[in-house]
Amino acid sequence: MIAAIIWHYLGTTAAASFLFGAFLSLFVGFIGMSSATKANLFSAIAAKKNDEKKAFFTAIFGGGVMGFAVASFGLLGLSSVFLFFILYGEKSGAPLDVILSSFSIGASLVAFFARVGGGIYTKSADVGADLVGKIESGIPEDDIRNPAVIADNVGDCVGDTAGMGADVYESYISSMVSAILLGIFHHPKSEIHAFLPMIISGIGTIASIFAIGIMMILPLSSKALLRSVTLLSVLFFTIMSYCAFNYLHISSSLFGAVLVGCISGIVIGAITEYYTGSSPIKKLAKSCESGAATNIIYGLSIGMESTVLPVILLAIAVQFAYYFGESYGVAIAAVAMLATVAIVMTIDGYGPIADTAGGIAEMASFGKKAREITDKLDSLGNTTAAVGKGFAIGSALLSALGVFAAYAARVNFEVLDLLNIQVLVGLFIGSTVPFLISALTMRSVGNAALEMVAEVRRQFKEITGLMEGKAEPDYEKCVQISTRASIREMILPGCIAIISPVLIKLFLGKFALGGFLVGATASGILLSLFLANGGGAWDNAKKYIEAGNFGGKGSPCHAAAVIGDTVGDPCKDTSGPANGILVKLMSMIALVLS
Amino acid sequence: MIAAIIWHYLGTTAAASFLFGAFLSLFVGFIGMSSATKANLFSAIAAKKNDEKKAFFTAIFGGGVMGFAVASFGLLGLSSVFLFFILYGEKSGAPLDVILSSFSIGASLVAFFARVGGGIYTKSADVGADLVGKIESGIPEDDIRNPAVIADNVGDCVGDTAGMGADVYESYISSMVSAILLGIFHHPKSEIHAFLPMIISGIGTIASIFAIGIMMILPLSSKALLRSVTLLSVLFFTIMSYCAFNYLHISSSLFGAVLVGCISGIVIGAITEYYTGSSPIKKLAKSCESGAATNIIYGLSIGMESTVLPVILLAIAVQFAYYFGESYGVAIAAVAMLATVAIVMTIDGYGPIADTAGGIAEMASFGKKAREITDKLDSLGNTTAAVGKGFAIGSALLSALGVFAAYAARVNFEVLDLLNIQVLVGLFIGSTVPFLISALTMRSVGNAALEMVAEVRRQFKEITGLMEGKAEPDYEKCVQISTRASIREMILPGCIAIISPVLIKLFLGKFALGGFLVGATASGILLSLFLANGGGAWDNAKKYIEAGNFGGKGSPCHAAAVIGDTVGDPCKDTSGPANGILVKLMSMIALVLS
Repeated sequence: MIAAIIWHYLGTTAAASFLFGAFLSLFVGFIGMSSATKANLFSAIAAKKNDEKKAFFTAIFGGGVMGFAVASFGLLGLSSVFLFFILYGEKSGAPLDVILSSFSIGASLVAFFARVGGGIYTKSADVGADLVGKIESGIPEDDIRNPAVIADNVGDCVGDTAGMGADVYESYISSMVSAILLGIFHHPKSEIHAFLPMIISGIGTIASIFAIGIMMILPLSSKALLRSVTLLSVLFFTIMSYCAFNYLHISSSLFGAVLVGCISGIVIGAITEYYTGSSPIKKLAKSCESGAATNIIYGLSIGMESTVLPVILLAIAVQFAYYFGESYGVAIAAVAMLATVAIVMTIDGYGPIADTAGGIAEMASFGKKAREITDKLDSLGNTTAAVGKGFAIGSALLSALGVFAAYAARVNFEVLDLLNIQVLVGLFIGSTVPFLISALTMRSVGNAALEMVAEVRRQFKEITGLMEGKAEPDYEKCVQISTRASIREMILPGCIAIISPVLIKLFLGKFALGGFLVGATASGILLSLFLANGGGAWDNAKKYIEAGNFGGKGSPCHAAAVIGDTVGDPCKDTSGPANGILVKLMSMIALVLS
Repeated sequence: MIAAIIWHYLGTTAAASFLFGAFLSLFVGFIGMSSATKANLFSAIAAKKNDEKKAFFTAIFGGGVMGFAVASFGLLGLSSVFLFFILYGEKSGAPLDVILSSFSIGASLVAFFARVGGGIYTKSADVGADLVGKIESGIPEDDIRNPAVIADNVGDCVGDTAGMGADVYESYISSMVSAILLGIFHHPKSEIHAFLPMIISGIGTIASIFAIGIMMILPLSSKALLRSVTLLSVLFFTIMSYCAFNYLHISSSLFGAVLVGCISGIVIGAITEYYTGSSPIKKLAKSCESGAATNIIYGLSIGMESTVLPVILLAIAVQFAYYFGESYGVAIAAVAMLATVAIVMTIDGYGPIADTAGGIAEMASFGKKAREITDKLDSLGNTTAAVGKGFAIGSALLSALGVFAAYAARVNFEVLDLLNIQVLVGLFIGSTVPFLISALTMRSVGNAALEMVAEVRRQFKEITGLMEGKAEPDYEKCVQISTRASIREMILPGCIAIISPVLIKLFLGKFALGGFLVGATASGILLSLFLANGGGAWDNAKKYIEAGNFGGKGSPCHAAAVIGDTVGDPCKDTSGPANGILVKLMSMIALVLS
């Protein structure tokens, strides 16, 4: 439908570019998902054979498929769109900026739907399965007697892997597109500025390959292995970029923007790690001692506090990057931050694979030794899981600003004056959109979970012999509920994201739309950090208690922590990430509107 | 200390004005509190004598003392500062804008501390008393065996009455001050523009007196009594204003701004009422059926959604008010919205008094009939409690914009360009401050509540005969914990509020400070609405269940609702209101800085 609208207003090429972008995004998600599913199993089997090294690399490469798919399909897709334009030039039916933006909107839209729809799917199944299965009927997690267990497991794959893949792919594309467009707008005479973003991303992918090579040499014993490899890849990347900048005679001040991107990415990763790990988590776990309410209060407080440092840091980074290359510099910093996406995503994908491999080893009774290996691999992954999210959110702000700058350049703003009441009104209205999207997505999870709860309860009651394991539950029905709910409930948020910039432009004009984008970006990033980190903190506090602290599993503390975790689920996996995509999607739509 | 800083930099007059503003704010809070405390008791006694009418009016007049204290001391204080300047002119040692701003900062600072400190005090006691008393030990609310009960009741007076009083007093003052300053800056040749805000407020107070008179005639039976009286007072106010505008030959387009203020105030009140009453509450109560987690998810969702309509409505109101009188029109709209503050506060103060009277009737065993009367009076208050909060928050945005416009006028901004990276960086940094303040205040409540829980548990264990009612608990100790915590924990948020604009100005300059104020205003208003309405919704969902729905008191639904209510307490009574004050306080400080 959206393709038809684009086709009608912007022509065939733009519509094809949109569909191509959407298709690649889906494809990346699909590849990542299927490789992860297989890697789970093979890693568990390797652990059974006591081959620690093989179990580790199976998991790493399982994640690597996703990481390198994001990087390579991103680069390939973008450069083929580019090539198409160069070959056909003006004959291609649309200007370059429209073609590129359409490509990016395709990727963003799929990512948005993957996060919203996937999030609703997985979390409704998860919450529904847990509430009736674990709490009411007292059967263990992932028990095959639970009718929602298939929907739950399918959801984990869709949400955590495909969702994350499409999400990061979208960031990768939109940061490159905004940098390319700014390169064209601001440096119309110098072609190298238009190509630089792709060059930088290419270098980052090569650096990631080096890093994977290094990983094969290093011993597995070090706990900080994955973190060191991430840092090493960034180091490779900066050295190679420096050489490339010299070789191509690009102003060395632009290299400053690259450095800004790399450094701020690492620091934001570290901040995210702090707030979802270490001392705040221990305090959060302790707050469970006086019940679920104090746990929620503390978690909200951690989530809110965790927004402050990253945003201030990003503001400083923006200032430096701007100093080095104006708004083009800001966009380049975003590209640089995401350049090593292949290795970051590899490690990010590794975590859930190692985790699930452990689950398989447990369920299939592979023995104690296998479980020890998977536990070790799992703990290796836990230290770095937050870093990927930090990169994703950090780059979201930078590339949202990049897209905003491209919009401002496109509509030839002389100024966008906050003393102009239109701009101010636009800003206030824009700042409410992320709140609305978050509200809708969180409620959808709640609604779908309620439906699921009713269905699971019904099956437990009506299917005779189910609890004794003699009859099979109706898995299909639960999958249907999740599927229908996710498709039904993602329509409204999607429409709001697409239509609201159009309405603002129509009724309040282009200045209001400028303010609208800034307001939406500021509040979207804040909400995104708040929800993602708050949710992550609750999750980790529960894990910390399950590791035997404050009474461990089954204690009153654990019960309080489970409530926090359930609240955190839609926050960190549905609403939080959706906001990061939302701000870029709306900016991109504004860009195309102009 | 702050007075000393003002004295050092701005002279004796400004410091005296600051202290005068702070003193009046404290005084209003004190008067309101003591009258409310007495009205509680007298109303309960009247209920014991079965004199419903007397019980009602005792409660109304108890609230009325606060309402009219806010209005009269606000007007008197401001006009005496004004008079002082007129009498002594240039000799008074500081320009008028500095004197007025200092007066307003004094009021804001006291209100901020009353909300933060008072909120921490009351909520730590409340949460502590409930968690151990109601949930762990199973003794009823307000039971004298609970050691925290005195701290809890004292806290209710401090937080709900004195806090609300100082809060609204601050809004009242800052809206008038910003309108007066804009009148002087934008219409330097027309004196009437400087006096108009005080004239409007005077008319509003007279309209409030009329409304009280009407209330004495109407029968008590109507459930919508208090709401009708509020609307009636606004109607009186607009008619009288229209006459006054004609009489004083003030441009009738400015009367449009007055209308905008009145109408948007009423509509925002209605929206607040919708989200904290009626159908969202029923759905929220229903979500308790699947436990505390879904209740929290739904409540967060309601809070987030409830920000959207008010902010869009305010944005439209700002646009209209600007159309009628530029930024002066916006400030006048804020003044008009708050003009009938006396009656709004009277009704707002009535609610807690009727509630506490019920508590007293219960504790002192005044009998079933007395309890019936107080219950009826209590339910009369519940329908309108939200309206006052809606007014407070709505006026906060308008007067924050007014102060911001005064700042812009004062530093002679030609433009405040969002394409200027300084402005954008300032905006992003500013938008984090309300998140930080909310995080700190919520955590403080959590910390103090933990301390309280430990103390109450200790007393239950160590004092023999306490549970049997044979020994007295150590109330003093619990009061001490609340007092110490509130004083200790309010220092950091206060410092952040005062120092952050200074730092931004110092390191990033006046343009960044302009962006900072806009960012802080947008995110502050959003968070304030989110937290206040979310908290209100949880509170009312609990009351709805306690009224016998979904299983009533003692059911699993009720337990889930209590957790939601406990989470909501610091949201709606500490962090939410603190943000509304914060944005005006920071803008006022920026104004003085220039």
